[in-house]
Amino acid sequence: MKQLDVCLTPDLLHLHKLENSIVVVADIFRATSCMVTGLAYGIQSITPVATVEECKVLQDKGYIAAAERNAQKVEGFELDNSPFSYMDERLIGAKVAMTTTNGTLSIAKARPSAVKIMVGAFLNLGALVNQLRSEQYDVLVLCAGWKGRPNLEDTLFAGALAEALQDEFMLMEDSVLMAQRLYQQGKDNLLSFVANSSHVRRLQRLGIQKDIAFSLQTDLYDVVPVLRGGALVSID
Amino acid sequence: MKQLDVCLTPDLLHLHKLENSIVVVADIFRATSCMVTGLAYGIQSITPVATVEECKVLQDKGYIAAAERNAQKVEGFELDNSPFSYMDERLIGAKVAMTTTNGTLSIAKARPSAVKIMVGAFLNLGALVNQLRSEQYDVLVLCAGWKGRPNLEDTLFAGALAEALQDEFMLMEDSVLMAQRLYQQGKDNLLSFVANSSHVRRLQRLGIQKDIAFSLQTDLYDVVPVLRGGALVSID
Repeated sequence: MKQLDVCLTPDLLHLHKLENSIVVVADIFRATSCMVTGLAYGIQSITPVATVEECKVLQDKGYIAAAERNAQKVEGFELDNSPFSYMDERLIGAKVAMTTTNGTLSIAKARPSAVKIMVGAFLNLGALVNQLRSEQYDVLVLCAGWKGRPNLEDTLFAGALAEALQDEFMLMEDSVLMAQRLYQQGKDNLLSFVANSSHVRRLQRLGIQKDIAFSLQTDLYDVVPVLRGGALVSID
Repeated sequence: MKQLDVCLTPDLLHLHKLENSIVVVADIFRATSCMVTGLAYGIQSITPVATVEECKVLQDKGYIAAAERNAQKVEGFELDNSPFSYMDERLIGAKVAMTTTNGTLSIAKARPSAVKIMVGAFLNLGALVNQLRSEQYDVLVLCAGWKGRPNLEDTLFAGALAEALQDEFMLMEDSVLMAQRLYQQGKDNLLSFVANSSHVRRLQRLGIQKDIAFSLQTDLYDVVPVLRGGALVSID
């Protein structure tokens, strides 16, 4: 039987063997919610890069570039880190380069050793569940967290995935049990369950409440972003 | 207002600044439950060491030595890692040296930078709560986990401490929120709540169920172990 495990922050990734695992990266507020939204709205590909400098290089090559640090847009880049910015007709068919504080860094960390890298959010939960059921590999949900620390919303997403896949996957480790139980506790009102979390307070100070509510919606989009040749594209 | 934070495993300790913090180390199954029990039963001091080799050196100097690796006693040492082994008249007034897979390693990691190091368990929860209320410092609960991974029982203990101290301490970070909510969910029956955890399954295979039930009891002992000059002694 396949296993589903959870890594609560990229700073714990060294504890996990990935050679038989699909890594699902989750950065609910807001990188992976943006990626799912963007691909759903017709962006051709999103190239995640770990640093602002790499993002600039791709921008100079003609990519539309999105750079976020500390929850704010970096000057000189076109796109910020709000899912609403990715619902733009001008982005249809575009190649986007993206760097964020936590999400793209997590992808970069997992990339050398994972079998495949997919991107998860509440927005594409059902589509992702179906995809993972059809795969032969174990799954590690890599929560992007905040600067190395675990956070509530990414852990809740991991728990949602565990809850949906518990009949097909073994849930052996305590991290996945904890995530699943937190999700069971919060699932009936995710928005109020995360209301006191550090990231929600951080985003609220910046006036980004609507991104939070949006990103906690389940099954809005049918896309599963997968990393191919360094770029995220929709699985056919 | 003082802050209470939680570090879910020693592998995340690098994210925390400790220069104004008391670190409370928790390794519920079973190192810190043993330490609390042993000091309550009259052991004079317990010197935690990170390696089996250091433990042997102290044994050669006349300490009674306890060494555990992978939940089992290491050959050549007097004491295992069961709280019941510490309820022994022959240990009254003794100096004990102890090394365990996770707990003593956590103490060693926190020692260079923490203001003070205390030892927590459900067994001394109330005494510890009173002590931390009387101190002027922030608190970081350091969950020992299992070989770098978070575990359920240590996280639940951190949550119990957060629940008890929430009126006197700020709970700012998501790790402490998650721990507190898991504790709220499990507190009415901790034993059944941890029944599926990885460590409980590991210990059950070794026939150590009674240690589990014992270590989940609250407020059996009034001692607060504190590290002084490299050895854990009871706070007067």
